[in-house]
Amino acid sequence: MARGRVIFGFHAVKSRIRQDAAQVDALYVQDSRDDPRMRDLLAAAAQSGLRVMPVGRERLDRLAGTTHHQGVVATVAADATKPDLDAILDALGEPALLLVLDGVQDPRNLGACLRVADGLGAHALVAPKDRSVGLTPTVAKVASGAAETVPYVAVTNLARTLRALQERDVRVVGAHADGTRALADADLGGPTAWVIGAEGEGLRRLTRETCDELVRIPMLGSVESLNVSVACGICLYESRRQRTARRG
Amino acid sequence: MARGRVIFGFHAVKSRIRQDAAQVDALYVQDSRDDPRMRDLLAAAAQSGLRVMPVGRERLDRLAGTTHHQGVVATVAADATKPDLDAILDALGEPALLLVLDGVQDPRNLGACLRVADGLGAHALVAPKDRSVGLTPTVAKVASGAAETVPYVAVTNLARTLRALQERDVRVVGAHADGTRALADADLGGPTAWVIGAEGEGLRRLTRETCDELVRIPMLGSVESLNVSVACGICLYESRRQRTARRG
Repeated sequence: MARGRVIFGFHAVKSRIRQDAAQVDALYVQDSRDDPRMRDLLAAAAQSGLRVMPVGRERLDRLAGTTHHQGVVATVAADATKPDLDAILDALGEPALLLVLDGVQDPRNLGACLRVADGLGAHALVAPKDRSVGLTPTVAKVASGAAETVPYVAVTNLARTLRALQERDVRVVGAHADGTRALADADLGGPTAWVIGAEGEGLRRLTRETCDELVRIPMLGSVESLNVSVACGICLYESRRQRTARRG
Repeated sequence: MARGRVIFGFHAVKSRIRQDAAQVDALYVQDSRDDPRMRDLLAAAAQSGLRVMPVGRERLDRLAGTTHHQGVVATVAADATKPDLDAILDALGEPALLLVLDGVQDPRNLGACLRVADGLGAHALVAPKDRSVGLTPTVAKVASGAAETVPYVAVTNLARTLRALQERDVRVVGAHADGTRALADADLGGPTAWVIGAEGEGLRRLTRETCDELVRIPMLGSVESLNVSVACGICLYESRRQRTARRG
């Protein structure tokens, strides 16, 4: 039997219980914790018929591979079916809003981007298989539950995926310091895939050349760039703002 | 003689050298590092007439109080004059744009907020003395140089400071999930102080009641909130967007 993924932290575990408790194989909680947050989690687990195993902190540290588990660790079934971008696009009831990350290797940054993608209603997060950190336990923890709610699509060839999106009339817009238009002047009302690179490196040449347009976030100070999750937040916010303004 | 502050990391140290090398008391670099980034820093130090002390990594670890110093640690003079909010406002050539944090205790978050404040052109960051982490070395590192460029104003009584801002015709706008208006509908063209609370806790009651208006960032997913630096980025971006749109 294939071993499942390990997730930890209150947000991530509770979110998974709420969404699909049947996927939770085992739930371990720190035996010495008894506070409102823990009682709340145990109530949710009981309601879902989940068996809870109280264990010592050291065991949780080993399970999670970190001490930052807040006393809550769960093993969940490895997803049987990987999310399929075409299926996601087919099922949408509104213009697509996708977030594509090119080379974000830091797990805290990927987790933060998932959280932003969830909060601002992106329909999926796309990343190249070989230049991304993948959904590690740290990613899931920082994502505060969003690793369970935002489909994460790992693709083999990012440029090819972007071209396939273009064939489905999704506009591929890259965030880039040398972008021709400022963010607020870009046309973001239709189906859009935002492509955002890692701090420092930015977008790879082929990724950049595949974009329909490069757009810049106006930078007014002395720092060279914004944190990648902040950049994602601002770009997705502007997309949502333009869509609401059109309807209004 | 009063001991200065310790800053570390390439961004923070280089930014300080570029801005005010006279304030750098001592510059320590890892003796085993010889790469383009280090050579670039050493060139900047030489140009400013700074004496460089090559030392072992363990000494840098002790000086910085962390291993994440990238091989660069500097001690800088504790600022003789603390930034004064009235003086900052008096010197502005455009409507004030301030960022006020209520209870952000995590150094990574404060550093990220400073970086965002710099990137989107906030004129100062204000925080209550007793509910803020202060400018620790970790804050300066995460801020990527912005701790040296954005005035950080620690105040004794936050509500009183907000009322003083209101008397100077600065609109005090709080970001809050229960805000009456959505961010894009708020009037942000004039002098504005954005008040943003810590994740989880949010704004304190007195802070909330002092605000002229509470505004919400539309949340479309399942996560309860955005990271505080992402929220700051989106609010400051919207302020800048409205100001540019008015001029255009």
